[in-house]
Amino acid sequence: MKAELISAGTELLLGEIVDTNAVYLSQKLAENGVDVYYRHTVGDNLGRLVEVLRLAFSRADAVIVTGGLGPTQDDITREAIAKATSCPLVRSPEAVTKLRAFFARRGRIPTENNLCQAEAPQGASLIDNEYGTAPGIRHEYPGGVVFALPGPPAELHPMFERDVLPYLLEQAGARAQRLYTRALLLADIGESNTAEILRELISAQTDPTIALYASPARVRVRLATKDTDENAARRRLDEVEVQVRELLGEHVFGADDDTMEVVLARLLRERAATLAVTESCTGGMIASRITDVAGASDYFLGGIVAYSNDVKQALLGVSSELLEAHGAVSEPCAAAMAEGVRSALGAHYSLATTGIAGPAGGTDDKPVGLVYIAVADQRGTMVAEHNWPGTREQFKQRVSQMALNMLRKRILDII
Amino acid sequence: MKAELISAGTELLLGEIVDTNAVYLSQKLAENGVDVYYRHTVGDNLGRLVEVLRLAFSRADAVIVTGGLGPTQDDITREAIAKATSCPLVRSPEAVTKLRAFFARRGRIPTENNLCQAEAPQGASLIDNEYGTAPGIRHEYPGGVVFALPGPPAELHPMFERDVLPYLLEQAGARAQRLYTRALLLADIGESNTAEILRELISAQTDPTIALYASPARVRVRLATKDTDENAARRRLDEVEVQVRELLGEHVFGADDDTMEVVLARLLRERAATLAVTESCTGGMIASRITDVAGASDYFLGGIVAYSNDVKQALLGVSSELLEAHGAVSEPCAAAMAEGVRSALGAHYSLATTGIAGPAGGTDDKPVGLVYIAVADQRGTMVAEHNWPGTREQFKQRVSQMALNMLRKRILDII
Repeated sequence: MKAELISAGTELLLGEIVDTNAVYLSQKLAENGVDVYYRHTVGDNLGRLVEVLRLAFSRADAVIVTGGLGPTQDDITREAIAKATSCPLVRSPEAVTKLRAFFARRGRIPTENNLCQAEAPQGASLIDNEYGTAPGIRHEYPGGVVFALPGPPAELHPMFERDVLPYLLEQAGARAQRLYTRALLLADIGESNTAEILRELISAQTDPTIALYASPARVRVRLATKDTDENAARRRLDEVEVQVRELLGEHVFGADDDTMEVVLARLLRERAATLAVTESCTGGMIASRITDVAGASDYFLGGIVAYSNDVKQALLGVSSELLEAHGAVSEPCAAAMAEGVRSALGAHYSLATTGIAGPAGGTDDKPVGLVYIAVADQRGTMVAEHNWPGTREQFKQRVSQMALNMLRKRILDII
Repeated sequence: MKAELISAGTELLLGEIVDTNAVYLSQKLAENGVDVYYRHTVGDNLGRLVEVLRLAFSRADAVIVTGGLGPTQDDITREAIAKATSCPLVRSPEAVTKLRAFFARRGRIPTENNLCQAEAPQGASLIDNEYGTAPGIRHEYPGGVVFALPGPPAELHPMFERDVLPYLLEQAGARAQRLYTRALLLADIGESNTAEILRELISAQTDPTIALYASPARVRVRLATKDTDENAARRRLDEVEVQVRELLGEHVFGADDDTMEVVLARLLRERAATLAVTESCTGGMIASRITDVAGASDYFLGGIVAYSNDVKQALLGVSSELLEAHGAVSEPCAAAMAEGVRSALGAHYSLATTGIAGPAGGTDDKPVGLVYIAVADQRGTMVAEHNWPGTREQFKQRVSQMALNMLRKRILDII
C-alpha cells in the first residue's frame, strides 16, 4: 500500500513550527508496512492544496492531510477535499450535536465558526475527536481513500491510532510485510562511546539493522527488521537485544516507550516504596517528570523546590554553618538536603539537586554546569558531582535525567 | 521570487530524523522575502526525485534540494538534477583537487566513491563546502536556478548564507521586499473566540495580514507585512497591533518570544516582589517553568510539591478538618495551600494548584479535569475553579499556564 502525506499550513512554509506530525505519521506508517514515497507541505491556499491533493490521488492508495481543520477562515482542508473530490460540503447534524456537547462540558457555546467544523464532503465519514473540536474526515476517491486529521498532536495521535491505522491495515490485507522495531534506552553514556562499544556488532549485523539516535539526555539503540510473520521478527529482535544488552550492561535503563520516570514508577511500586525530592537547580523539573506518570501519588509524596537558602534552612533543616562553610552548591549541602526532605516527608527514598544552571552565577571554583546530586535511603546517603556546561535547558534536562538514573541504580543496588 | 524546497532522503520518509533543514531554509527565505509555496520530501529514488524536480522547475524561479550528495549509491541528487535538466554529469578537476586536499588534511585518501562527489551536471557551478566533502551545486534550468546542498546542517548553513542567499537576493533585485512579523500572545481565550472577536478586523485587513495559531496553552496572533523599507513595515505593524490590543485587552500577555514566565519575571522584578508556589496536580511544572528563566532566584523563593495530604498538612498547615470536610480538591484547600506556602516561605505572592489530572481518580462530583487555582498576597486570597478534561500532559500545561496568568492579572490588579 502506497500513502502520501500532506501537511497544510502557511506557518510550516514560513518555518515557524516544526512538522512533528509528518515525523509521527511517517514512523507509524513505516512500522506498519505502509510505503510513503512523497510528503508535501503547502500553505493555507485553496488552489494549491487542491492541486497537491489531485496529484496525490493520481498516485497513492491513501492520502493523509494534517492541519487546516480549525474554525478560522484560514482552515481550508475541508473545502479543498470537497473540491478535489467534486463533492459538495455538507454539515453533519450528528457532528453538530457532538460539538455542542463538547462545548457544553466546558460551559461554553460554539460560535458559527466552530459549527463549520462539523462540515465534510458529501459521502464522507467523520472521525471522532475526543480532545478537540475538529472531527477528522475519511473520504474515498477513485482508487483510494483520503483522511484529514487536525494539527494538534494530542488530537491527531489518538485519532490516527484508533481509526486511521486499523482502516489502512485492513485495506492492506494480512500478507503485507511489516516493520518490527525495538529500542533500548541508555543513560549515562554518549553516542560516540556507544558506537565504539557496538562497532563490531553493528558491522557484522545486517538483519535486524542497528542504528543509534542521540537526544540531549539519552541515547537510543534501535533494532529493526521486516517480516510477514511477527513471531519470526520478534525472535530475531530478541537475539540481537541480548547481544546489545550484554555489551552495554547497566547503561540500558529501559526499552521502547519507557521513560526514566516510568521505569522508576515500576521499581518503586514493586517495592511499595515512597519517594520525596528536593530541587534547587532543577527547579521542579524532577517532580514534574515524576508526576507525568499516571498514578504517581501511589509512591510520590511530594517535593520541596528549595531555590533560596532560607528555604533550604527552614524546610530542609540545612544549617547556616554548613551553608557558610561549604556554600549551597556543595556535596555536604546536597547530602543535607536529601536527608532533610526524606525526614520531613517520611519517605523511603529521596533525591536532591543543587548546582549552577547559569548563564550567570558561576565562579572559578564553582563554574556554570557544576552540580551535586544526592540520593538517600535507610542505608545512607550518596552524592555524585558532575559538570555539564550547556544551556540552562540542557542543564536542567541532563541533571534531572541523571538524578532519576542515580535513584534507579540505588534502588537496584548497583551503586 | 518563488522558491520550492525538496528534501531528499528515505530516512526522512521513515520518520527517523526530523527535517530541520526545511525549517531553517523556510525561515531564512521568508525573512528575505522569497516565497515558498511548496515543500517536497522524497526518498532516495532517482525516478521520483526527477519527477519532483521537473514539477518544481515548471512553477518556481528557484529550487533548493537538500541531501543526497554523499558518497554512497543512495546519494542520487547529482544524477537527478543532471537528468531533470538533460545535461550529462561531468567530473570537475578543480573539485577533485579540493576533495583530495580535504582528505589529505585528515591523513586520508579519497575512494572512487568519494570522487563521485566532484561530479555535477555540465555547465553547473560548484559551491565550496568548508565543513565536509560534498560540494554544493548551482545549475540553471529554463526559467530558474536549482541549488543542491548537503544534508548535514553544519555544512548546509554556511553554504546557504555565503552563496545561495546572496545569489537569490541579487536575482530578486535590491528592491525585493522582506517579511516583517509581530506576534501577540494570548491567555485565557481559545482560538475560536479570538477569531470571533477579530473577525471584522481580519476580514477588513489585507496588509499586514492577521493569522491565528493555537497551541495547547496559548493562542498567537501573528501580524505580517512585506516591504523594502523596514520603518514603513514596522509602522504598519504598530498600527494594527494597537487595534488588536484594543479588541483583546487583558488577554494579550506578551509579544514575540515572550513566555508567561518571562513576563512574570519582568513584573516581579519591577516591584521587587517575591514569589512562592505550591502545587498538587501540576506536580512541579509551575516551579520548573518559573526557574526556566535565568536569574529567577532574584524573585523566586521556592515551592512545595504537596502531592500527598500529609505534605499539605505538615508543610502548608492545611488542617485535617478542612481536608475531611471539603477534600484536597476544593476551593478552601486551594486557598489554605496558597496562604500556607506564602507564610511558610515569607513571599509577597503565592500560587497554589489542586485538581484531578486523571486518567484515574475522578468521581461524579469531582471529575477528571476539575482544578482549583489560588493566588494570595497581602490583599487576600482569590480562588478560581476550572474544568479542563484532556490528557494528563495537556491538563498540566493548561493549569500551569492559567495559574501563572492569574498571578499576572493579580499583580497588575486587573482581577
